[in-house]
Amino acid sequence: MLSMKRTLIADMPKKIGENITVFGWIQTVRSHGKIAFFDVYDRSGLLQVVAASEETVAIASGLSQRTGVRVSGLIKNRGERYVNPNMATGAVELEANEIEVIAQSEVLPFDMGGKELSLELPTLLDFRSLTLKHETIRMIFAVQAALAEAFREAAHKLGCMEIFVPTIAAGATEGGAEVFPVDYYGHQAFLTQSPQLYKQIMVGVFERVFTIAKAYRAEPSVTTRHLTEATQMDVEIGFIEKFEELLDALEFVGTEMIKSVSGTYEYVLKHFGVETPLVPTHVPRLTLREAQEIVTKRTGRDLSRENDLNPEDEKEICAWSKETHKSDFVTITHFPTKKRAFYTMPDPQNPEYSLSYDLLFRGLEILSGSQRIHSHDELVAAMKKKGVNPDNFAMYLMAFKYGMPPEGGFSFGLERLTMKFLELSNVREASLFPRDMERIDERLSVLEEKHHKTD
Amino acid sequence: MLSMKRTLIADMPKKIGENITVFGWIQTVRSHGKIAFFDVYDRSGLLQVVAASEETVAIASGLSQRTGVRVSGLIKNRGERYVNPNMATGAVELEANEIEVIAQSEVLPFDMGGKELSLELPTLLDFRSLTLKHETIRMIFAVQAALAEAFREAAHKLGCMEIFVPTIAAGATEGGAEVFPVDYYGHQAFLTQSPQLYKQIMVGVFERVFTIAKAYRAEPSVTTRHLTEATQMDVEIGFIEKFEELLDALEFVGTEMIKSVSGTYEYVLKHFGVETPLVPTHVPRLTLREAQEIVTKRTGRDLSRENDLNPEDEKEICAWSKETHKSDFVTITHFPTKKRAFYTMPDPQNPEYSLSYDLLFRGLEILSGSQRIHSHDELVAAMKKKGVNPDNFAMYLMAFKYGMPPEGGFSFGLERLTMKFLELSNVREASLFPRDMERIDERLSVLEEKHHKTD
Repeated sequence: MLSMKRTLIADMPKKIGENITVFGWIQTVRSHGKIAFFDVYDRSGLLQVVAASEETVAIASGLSQRTGVRVSGLIKNRGERYVNPNMATGAVELEANEIEVIAQSEVLPFDMGGKELSLELPTLLDFRSLTLKHETIRMIFAVQAALAEAFREAAHKLGCMEIFVPTIAAGATEGGAEVFPVDYYGHQAFLTQSPQLYKQIMVGVFERVFTIAKAYRAEPSVTTRHLTEATQMDVEIGFIEKFEELLDALEFVGTEMIKSVSGTYEYVLKHFGVETPLVPTHVPRLTLREAQEIVTKRTGRDLSRENDLNPEDEKEICAWSKETHKSDFVTITHFPTKKRAFYTMPDPQNPEYSLSYDLLFRGLEILSGSQRIHSHDELVAAMKKKGVNPDNFAMYLMAFKYGMPPEGGFSFGLERLTMKFLELSNVREASLFPRDMERIDERLSVLEEKHHKTD
Repeated sequence: MLSMKRTLIADMPKKIGENITVFGWIQTVRSHGKIAFFDVYDRSGLLQVVAASEETVAIASGLSQRTGVRVSGLIKNRGERYVNPNMATGAVELEANEIEVIAQSEVLPFDMGGKELSLELPTLLDFRSLTLKHETIRMIFAVQAALAEAFREAAHKLGCMEIFVPTIAAGATEGGAEVFPVDYYGHQAFLTQSPQLYKQIMVGVFERVFTIAKAYRAEPSVTTRHLTEATQMDVEIGFIEKFEELLDALEFVGTEMIKSVSGTYEYVLKHFGVETPLVPTHVPRLTLREAQEIVTKRTGRDLSRENDLNPEDEKEICAWSKETHKSDFVTITHFPTKKRAFYTMPDPQNPEYSLSYDLLFRGLEILSGSQRIHSHDELVAAMKKKGVNPDNFAMYLMAFKYGMPPEGGFSFGLERLTMKFLELSNVREASLFPRDMERIDERLSVLEEKHHKTD
């Protein structure tokens, strides 16, 4: 028996009448005296096992949730009235001859057998290595992987080359104080706030590039939308002839991703009770000021002195987009120049505003970007105006001396996109091992305590 | 003219007799008085342009290398004797009507027009934003992107789920002192030496996973094979029944990648004067001791007291593999347990040696990995034996309490693989912006000087 080749659970419906071996983890056990049922899952799916002999019932009844097992036996059709239409293998079951425990799990600190995992966020994170095993949470990260893959596919369609850029830098990418210092052989370095400067350099090399990279932000506050270490999906495009090409490109990538993943993971959307995203042929485009006027009309709130959309405004303008354009997306352009990073191109028509944009999805900003200043001298002037020292950006500025065409780009937050796709309430739920001001896997306070004990 | 839609250079051979517009950069200019030729490239290819009018000759003659231009004109067949068979567009040329400079390049500090870029490594890196533009160097990173894509394809074929794991951690992943400290809101954290611990946790979740992640090593020395920030391509696989499954998996991924990229980039191998890699059906497998015996037989060097292969040994055993098995790959297994990280499974037959492996390619280790200890208590004991404090690995150890099956994995170094594929002499040539003990884009000494000037 031990040498019997493993069969994946997804292939079970094709194996009726055959003796097979599965490897997987116990999801739930239901023991009824002389018969016991348990659900076992592997990477391909979930299967019901029946234990009907004295020996297998005894073993099955003692199996704890998440224990790893090998089960050998016969694949049979379930009786018609026992078919479970909500399960891919719901028409079959495995009658166990042999059950071997290969990875004993301790008794769980809470029940993981239900369809939902009703835990408060701190518990969800304190037990992350365990809670990630729950079916619902695994779905979140299957969706995340699919979003990343769909991003790469869309970027390839745009003609972008994939690049791998550094995360240790000598200066702060976006200016500002929200950076993590690194001790680099006794020199002070920083973790990059984004792959921004390197992807711009690479426009001078490959014209169109993309990267999936880490972005580190030492945010001084805890919110439901921020991580200190996030995953960015970036595109940068050169030789553009007009600003609108950038909007076309970002809307292409954004809608392609959501369409693709909505198709593959319709059952996940259903599991989460979330509507299929509304993806329009043309994403509505508004300037910030136009968007603010719409919000004012709908809510009466005066936004004339606001230079950005706050979270409530983002929700409101998305509600408008959904109602009037049947779109879960809306593109907002022309944010005030003083509110954007130094490399942002001011609008030549009205330099107080910039050729910048955000893409909103279901009430949240999931993308940000702009056309960039591509003249070396204008870039240096913009740096100085923002209090950024050009000396710290020698390699970046070099790229602008040797033929940088008009260009721009954008950046999706992978965790935010995952969060909104499944309508999660906190971005931490969309990060395998979220980092924030209070936690690196364990709470910082706990880590400090351990540290003092060791001293 | 300005509104004429851009055509990519790769499409030129289909446009004979048409008026088109290209955007691209100047590679070389050859001016002959009343006629001038220049080569222009975009992301899709290289094209010869002819300037024959007084106006276009004047502009063309003044174009400096790497300047960005828009050129409009007529696509014509070249005369038969002028066809260049080494150029994808070698049968056609563009007769320019209009040339517009859209991104003026400064005069270059060295010539970039030749087929080769003969610069010393420090110059290559001091001017990285410029030197990356050279055709030969662009090829390196096109190959790198293709290797990463081929890795993901192979990992998907193995049934792996893509994961995104953190790089800021509370403890040192692999133990040891070669870590970069990060100031995390006043707490001491570290950059991960590898995604190792997180991918292992994720085996308990998805069974089979892959990730492309950064690995940070504060190597205290400068070699031709080490970077302080490298890109790792990792796989981890659970529910294995025997050690050899891991060898099958790593050889599958390694050979698939090389076969795929060798096919697509045959012209790059030719450009670099490098042989097409020899990919065998079965990669030869040797234990470390067997490999050492072969090296001793071939060279007379006594290796009986060596616990690893040194660079000369790696070259020698690869020469053996090539000669006797027509293979540029060789798998070496069973390194001494004391030489490998704490999570490595000792061989139950002989615990002095471990169920570990390296994959060598053309004389260099491009992959490392092992079967892992999957019992929680054995893992804690192994940590203590290596002087690693289990308190720093609470989240990691939690995964082993709740059902961790027998598992193992491996990790390719993307830059090393790129380096050996093209037979580059230094791994820095295979990193867009290499970080080492002496450099973060600029040399650390230069950065320090600037810093002092600012103070």
